[in-house]
Amino acid sequence: MQRKFNHLIDLEDYPKEKWNQMIELAQDIMKSPASFSEKCKGKIMATLFYEPSTRTQMSFQTAMIKLGGSIIGFDNPDNSSVSKGENLKDTIKIVSGYSDILVMRSPLEGAAKVGALVADCPVINAGDGGHLHPTQTLTDLLTLKIQKGRLDNLKIGFCGDLKNGRTVHSLVKALSCYNDNEFTFISTKKLEIPLYIKNYLSSKGISFNVAYSIEEAIESLDVLYMTRIQKERFSSEEEYISQKNVYILDAEKMKLADKDMIVLHPLPRVDEITIEVDDDSRAMYFKQANNGVYIRMALILSAIEGAVGAVPLFSGKEFPEIICTNEKCVTHKETYLPHNFTKNGDMLECEYCEQRILMK
Amino acid sequence: MQRKFNHLIDLEDYPKEKWNQMIELAQDIMKSPASFSEKCKGKIMATLFYEPSTRTQMSFQTAMIKLGGSIIGFDNPDNSSVSKGENLKDTIKIVSGYSDILVMRSPLEGAAKVGALVADCPVINAGDGGHLHPTQTLTDLLTLKIQKGRLDNLKIGFCGDLKNGRTVHSLVKALSCYNDNEFTFISTKKLEIPLYIKNYLSSKGISFNVAYSIEEAIESLDVLYMTRIQKERFSSEEEYISQKNVYILDAEKMKLADKDMIVLHPLPRVDEITIEVDDDSRAMYFKQANNGVYIRMALILSAIEGAVGAVPLFSGKEFPEIICTNEKCVTHKETYLPHNFTKNGDMLECEYCEQRILMK
Amino acid sequence: MQRKFNHLIDLEDYPKEKWNQMIELAQDIMKSPASFSEKCKGKIMATLFYEPSTRTQMSFQTAMIKLGGSIIGFDNPDNSSVSKGENLKDTIKIVSGYSDILVMRSPLEGAAKVGALVADCPVINAGDGGHLHPTQTLTDLLTLKIQKGRLDNLKIGFCGDLKNGRTVHSLVKALSCYNDNEFTFISTKKLEIPLYIKNYLSSKGISFNVAYSIEEAIESLDVLYMTRIQKERFSSEEEYISQKNVYILDAEKMKLADKDMIVLHPLPRVDEITIEVDDDSRAMYFKQANNGVYIRMALILSAIEGAVGAVPLFSGKEFPEIICTNEKCVTHKETYLPHNFTKNGDMLECEYCEQRILMK
Repeated sequence: MQRKFNHLIDLEDYPKEKWNQMIELAQDIMKSPASFSEKCKGKIMATLFYEPSTRTQMSFQTAMIKLGGSIIGFDNPDNSSVSKGENLKDTIKIVSGYSDILVMRSPLEGAAKVGALVADCPVINAGDGGHLHPTQTLTDLLTLKIQKGRLDNLKIGFCGDLKNGRTVHSLVKALSCYNDNEFTFISTKKLEIPLYIKNYLSSKGISFNVAYSIEEAIESLDVLYMTRIQKERFSSEEEYISQKNVYILDAEKMKLADKDMIVLHPLPRVDEITIEVDDDSRAMYFKQANNGVYIRMALILSAIEGAVGAVPLFSGKEFPEIICTNEKCVTHKETYLPHNFTKNGDMLECEYCEQRILMK
Repeated sequence: MQRKFNHLIDLEDYPKEKWNQMIELAQDIMKSPASFSEKCKGKIMATLFYEPSTRTQMSFQTAMIKLGGSIIGFDNPDNSSVSKGENLKDTIKIVSGYSDILVMRSPLEGAAKVGALVADCPVINAGDGGHLHPTQTLTDLLTLKIQKGRLDNLKIGFCGDLKNGRTVHSLVKALSCYNDNEFTFISTKKLEIPLYIKNYLSSKGISFNVAYSIEEAIESLDVLYMTRIQKERFSSEEEYISQKNVYILDAEKMKLADKDMIVLHPLPRVDEITIEVDDDSRAMYFKQANNGVYIRMALILSAIEGAVGAVPLFSGKEFPEIICTNEKCVTHKETYLPHNFTKNGDMLECEYCEQRILMK
Repeated sequence: MQRKFNHLIDLEDYPKEKWNQMIELAQDIMKSPASFSEKCKGKIMATLFYEPSTRTQMSFQTAMIKLGGSIIGFDNPDNSSVSKGENLKDTIKIVSGYSDILVMRSPLEGAAKVGALVADCPVINAGDGGHLHPTQTLTDLLTLKIQKGRLDNLKIGFCGDLKNGRTVHSLVKALSCYNDNEFTFISTKKLEIPLYIKNYLSSKGISFNVAYSIEEAIESLDVLYMTRIQKERFSSEEEYISQKNVYILDAEKMKLADKDMIVLHPLPRVDEITIEVDDDSRAMYFKQANNGVYIRMALILSAIEGAVGAVPLFSGKEFPEIICTNEKCVTHKETYLPHNFTKNGDMLECEYCEQRILMK
């Protein structure tokens, strides 16, 4: 099946030059927003949010409004035809007929790719379960570019639940495409960065550090990227009690950091950064959230104008008998989808959710 | 009470010349949407959806946006003042003060007529329970006009739950106003088209066919209009198992159909049309959904400009002692409404929900 | 902390000359709405509704649309990041980065003041629990001005649950700033106007009347302001049965009133005004709701243009050890907030919710 539109499903579908181009466009928009305020006049963006995410949805809505466009959509599947049993394909097919661009969020991994397969307009992935969230990653890159002036030669620490945090995985992969970045992973043993990310870095000849507290790592960092650790992620109640403060950033720990180190967080936070840190001029997470509007403006505009560039959705082939082993994969609920996989030796990789399956 | 505005509550309030006019206007808009893109600039449409219906609501919103207007409204009574016990009249009265046109959806039969009675602006009925859904019927007519080039001399099959499907009843009645249309009703015995529709056709001298499978009817049709049959509508589990495939349209059955036969469906579908049929060039249900935007543009524009034409809301009289026997009638919940009925021999017909009551 | 923007949190932050100015601007807008229809072009209003209130939200949305601006927001905390445990500060901080003005509604008393403390744009209080609802009060004043031609020298009766009705408390306080207004409080003994309001009036040398039925008071009134009494507010089932009709306004009681007396109600009503009264030309509650749009236009415009005037948010000081005794005070849930109080003799008054605490 051939991609007809400029979708943004997965950052890895594009070379980093394309990301740079989006970041530059976002910066241009920031410089003179007025010259972009009518660019999408008469255009309609539909936001299909199969799980609520106010922040992301409002960021996209703000972006479209600032381009002069309009918005339709839903924020809750309970209020949608989904609750009458309609499949994803039909909803996407119909709503994409109403609109010029579709923004999709779903708890199902690979859902946005289904959007790209069937929509009659470009699709932007606003998060598909624990899988991808490319506009967050581009927001992070834009913020680094603005605050540090570069995307290479950065010492970046990631702290929190590094095992389950898709935001972290995606940003590490993205930054590994730029030269001379150094990674430090700060977490409990149980919540360490996954082996496949470590292997990925090693395969590119990139070394990384592992730390078990913020204190031991913070001094040397240019950037500290904080994420949540949920209480239930610790191995035991005892570990939680003894460890939790180790992964909370407070004013005391900020004293150890360089005066130019910046703190990022994808938000929402719970208590992993204390409120007092907000008043530190190095706290950049609110600016980061705000930057998200501009990168989304760049993406919406580029997608509608056809400037993203169309790439094929599938590169492998159909294996009708093989069922993806990831229970959150969109193919389980949307049973009409072709079972497409890429083959690599004994391994099949699902082309929706990237789950790897060992063939017998 | 005198109608002050151009409401669209019931298609039968207008002669078919008015329908044709709306269909023509929709086609004009399709041809040059740009010349309509500022027609409702500065106007506000309120969508009062007392039950969620994302599809219909987004279709109306898209229509208003494409006319240059703006939207307010709610999609769920739980988030509205209704949950504080407010009556329909007060909500309509106030919201119609905020807006230039009101679009209402309700599970109560006759609710839209209440809208028309009290609103300070035109009201469009976007579905009142199992009673009426005139914009769906106009969408169907527009699609027939575009795809077949005419609204007369058509051989149309209706398949599914013909007993309970308001969409079918309304379209049959509408098409019976055009010359030489032939109807074929395809359903189980239990879900046959109601007697009152049969009598209605007979009274107009229109003959119709009855069939118990798609296969026996499909060959001769110009149009096949599919609808859902819910499992629980079959007489028994046995009947369901033995019969369900008979009423599912698939690629196999499409082979029997004429190369110009088109397939329509009001959507959402569940499984009464298999996904493979979507790729058949005769499958028109997604285009049909899209056409809905243009007929709604025509209606909104005509209502706001006063071009629909005002007709009286009540033609009968008040019978304060008589209570409508339809438990879904809006008069049961909204007890302040006058009990208006038209009288025909021994029968009273409720002027809200069209329930017929035998007087003693 | 210094107020950077023109917030509207509490009417009492401003002298009545400012209120008059808003009322005049609202009247100017009513006279020539077209000359205001592009005043907020390109501006974004965010509505953060932590509890649903369709009426108020639609009124604000309509106001912003009529000024040419756009809208983002949510109407239900369940669909927002709040449900992920985000604090009020973060949500406000981020959303105010997306928008030019913020409208907040919350069940927590003092929540809007938190908005004003942290937002990067002006904040309008659209109701914080049982505490304040200044745009309702301004709507009431505007309606009196339009209908009676003045805000002084009025005989105003308030009827219903005067103990718990914040709308009544606020309007009484506001009208006591104008000369020669006379108040009559009509309620059961149990639901009498609070002592602090009585003391407030006495301290300003304003006398008031107390009545236990509409009938005994209505004849002499220029204005009758009705509010709800909930069944559970009566002392007993017996009292409810014997008393409820005494506080219901019907056509019979309207006969006793002056031909120029107007009836107001903040809406939604339940059954405290019978439907028949709606057709009385003295019933002004629907017009009153409609006037709310224009006062909100005046406020939005003034806040965005900086014409409201910035005033300090806190006038007292921080008492870190003192905890507000009002369990609905926003400081209980948002624990990072400074505990600010004004001191008056032995009393501390919470600067968020105005709760008074006796110091030991």
